[in-house]
Amino acid sequence: MLEQLKQAVYEANMELPKRGLVTFTWGNVSGIDRDSRLVVIKPSGVAYESLTPDDMVVIDLDGNQVEGMLSPSSDTKTHIELYKAFPALGGIVHTHSTYAVAWAQAGQDIPCYGTTHADYFYGSIPCVRHLTDQEIDEDYEKNTGRAIVETFQERMIDPVHVPGAICASHGPFTWGRDAAQAVYHAVVLEEVAKMAIYTREVDRKSFVAPQNMQDKHFMRKHGPNAYYGQK
Amino acid sequence: MLEQLKQAVYEANMELPKRGLVTFTWGNVSGIDRDSRLVVIKPSGVAYESLTPDDMVVIDLDGNQVEGMLSPSSDTKTHIELYKAFPALGGIVHTHSTYAVAWAQAGQDIPCYGTTHADYFYGSIPCVRHLTDQEIDEDYEKNTGRAIVETFQERMIDPVHVPGAICASHGPFTWGRDAAQAVYHAVVLEEVAKMAIYTREVDRKSFVAPQNMQDKHFMRKHGPNAYYGQK
Amino acid sequence: MLEQLKQAVYEANMELPKRGLVTFTWGNVSGIDRDSRLVVIKPSGVAYESLTPDDMVVIDLDGNQVEGMLSPSSDTKTHIELYKAFPALGGIVHTHSTYAVAWAQAGQDIPCYGTTHADYFYGSIPCVRHLTDQEIDEDYEKNTGRAIVETFQERMIDPVHVPGAICASHGPFTWGRDAAQAVYHAVVLEEVAKMAIYTREVDRKSFVAPQNMQDKHFMRKHGPNAYYGQK
Amino acid sequence: MLEQLKQAVYEANMELPKRGLVTFTWGNVSGIDRDSRLVVIKPSGVAYESLTPDDMVVIDLDGNQVEGMLSPSSDTKTHIELYKAFPALGGIVHTHSTYAVAWAQAGQDIPCYGTTHADYFYGSIPCVRHLTDQEIDEDYEKNTGRAIVETFQERMIDPVHVPGAICASHGPFTWGRDAAQAVYHAVVLEEVAKMAIYTREVDRKSFVAPQNMQDKHFMRKHGPNAYYGQK
Repeated sequence: MLEQLKQAVYEANMELPKRGLVTFTWGNVSGIDRDSRLVVIKPSGVAYESLTPDDMVVIDLDGNQVEGMLSPSSDTKTHIELYKAFPALGGIVHTHSTYAVAWAQAGQDIPCYGTTHADYFYGSIPCVRHLTDQEIDEDYEKNTGRAIVETFQERMIDPVHVPGAICASHGPFTWGRDAAQAVYHAVVLEEVAKMAIYTREVDRKSFVAPQNMQDKHFMRKHGPNAYYGQK
Repeated sequence: MLEQLKQAVYEANMELPKRGLVTFTWGNVSGIDRDSRLVVIKPSGVAYESLTPDDMVVIDLDGNQVEGMLSPSSDTKTHIELYKAFPALGGIVHTHSTYAVAWAQAGQDIPCYGTTHADYFYGSIPCVRHLTDQEIDEDYEKNTGRAIVETFQERMIDPVHVPGAICASHGPFTWGRDAAQAVYHAVVLEEVAKMAIYTREVDRKSFVAPQNMQDKHFMRKHGPNAYYGQK
Repeated sequence: MLEQLKQAVYEANMELPKRGLVTFTWGNVSGIDRDSRLVVIKPSGVAYESLTPDDMVVIDLDGNQVEGMLSPSSDTKTHIELYKAFPALGGIVHTHSTYAVAWAQAGQDIPCYGTTHADYFYGSIPCVRHLTDQEIDEDYEKNTGRAIVETFQERMIDPVHVPGAICASHGPFTWGRDAAQAVYHAVVLEEVAKMAIYTREVDRKSFVAPQNMQDKHFMRKHGPNAYYGQK
Repeated sequence: MLEQLKQAVYEANMELPKRGLVTFTWGNVSGIDRDSRLVVIKPSGVAYESLTPDDMVVIDLDGNQVEGMLSPSSDTKTHIELYKAFPALGGIVHTHSTYAVAWAQAGQDIPCYGTTHADYFYGSIPCVRHLTDQEIDEDYEKNTGRAIVETFQERMIDPVHVPGAICASHGPFTWGRDAAQAVYHAVVLEEVAKMAIYTREVDRKSFVAPQNMQDKHFMRKHGPNAYYGQK
């Protein structure tokens, strides 16, 4: 079942330690098959070194396990909420990558200080609020997903234009059209989080990039008039 | 004698350079066999590249060398004090890992800024006070252990819930149910120490994670209702 | 056509990921054949792992593609402007290397804090102004090159003595007598950008190196009386 | 001639890139044979990848080249001054390692913030003053050595107890009983320079380690009552 997607999600998971984004088992990648409405996700707490494509777990959008011997990632419900609210998403990643976590722990949006950021994220990368006691008690992981969705809706951000967020005191979630692109965005988010910290080291009062540069860079990689890369 | 434990302690020691936690010989791991009350520990000042399982030194809880051609780690008495005071400990690690040392040198507890920390350490990682002149002259290494124990007792911290500490102007000690888990906690402590420094870089007035998040994350990995990982 | 230059430009491009200067495809190197007035440059958005010497694109100084199946780097026009204005240049590099980007995003020149910098860059590494709306709309990449040239002309800097610049909110461009030396200077710029950030960490009010030291170090590696290296 | 020393100096030089202390050719190691009063040193500007033991250059303490086809390191006269003033030295290293350079560029001594530092350097690592115009014009490299010696004499520091210094706006020199130990101290100096920067990141008002801890740690590794390592 979904052998191709399982292979793709497996490979995207294996990219996380290779890219230095995870310590131990602190990360997970999922992918969705929109036709069957089934999600493939990493099993919980399994070491990357021993992971195989067959270990991937299949769940439906109600959270029922459809296939797989292992329990799915403890963050599975967060992934499901995002897939349900954002139809454009084909893959989702969660990590505890160092510099993205630093911004999350400081509870601040990552400002768009330059073109590296603007090439992939159009505007600030939002920091999602803390959950209430009730939200934590009721269903922590599900409500984490809902709080992310709420942030994008209230601030009217298109999740395709800003393919990621950081959850306060926690860490980053990124997404993309498939699992591989979601990992690509996780790498970008970590790198721009690092650059932004050192930008402030140089000058704590640094300004965001001018809007015209942000527009230019985002548009030359995205949208109908994009001209970066090969056709 | 204790071949299995020697092998485990040897492997845990070899994990330190692999994980980037030690420069030269600046680290040591021990493990204890609670039945025989014997401790296996790395020999002092031996390069990791030339270390073998047979080099491990066996000592009893009075500090007598029971087996081994080489002298044990100069920090052996610190390990012994911890094993004697904290019966739950099966393994102990000492390193001079960079970011943990930075907090130790600044003489401050590492605050629980987020879930990466809360997943393994329940609350701040305590900074243990300096020794007095008398304590240093009398028995530096033994009294280092006693000062750690004193800190946990005075602040009523369960060493299973906070599996490590940093000694002021010195560096970290971590522990666990066995040598491998003690090393695991050494990796976590170094990573959260690094994250905490960059959190302050973003905002020097960052707050610790809300108590409900700390509870949730610690409890989903520990205790009777834990649901992280495979059963 | 230009097989030797293509090989050299290919090898210089491959040096970027090896030296840790690029993530994904975020960099490009070109080289020029001054006799034929033809430029060889990396194709746009092609992964380094799959790049071959034959993928290199040949263009003339009017921006016409002379050879190659792939589209040239999106930054090609910036390279062309630099080759046209600075006849001494044989190779050019653009990257998004982390610490150089931090200075660019902070919008500040990189001060010459010491001999590592003075050995290769004589004085500050200039930060080039933002483009106007009109310059961005008209021809972003071409005008980026023109703004760099303008900076060197207005500040009367010899591009051979200061073989690089950082563009505000964007990142570094470096150059040299050939593609390999341009990459060498990209490595130096990133390293001195990093050193300069940590210099400020130690003391935010650090001074630039005394002029006599800057002179001594630049001159012992460059000019008629240089005595560094082998003859 | 001096084949064994050449091999040792060659190996010590090769350790620099392996330990991440040098970029390109920015470092050199020498060793001295006290009986013949001959110094073996790396040739100037030669890439580490192509270096061989036979490339090592032999000079006498008047700076005359006694053997070798290549020119010696441009810093040779600095090494000579140190060998002449400090009879205990058997090896010397110069690098531009990142964090040591940051302190040098900030013009500050590296404070002894903890035991990692105190284990090898007894007290602050001194920052040596800038040279005067006359000193630079007359003989830059020789006078760099003299300024280091002056610092140790004026501040009455034993170069065996503090096996290194940083030159203002420049970088570190370290030494030891032989070339290998000089490299060892270069690694330690870089690591404690890094730790000291992050210590200040945590708390800019951090204090040096208490004198009794500095004494204890230096003495347990050095002097008649040392008990670290194997006998």
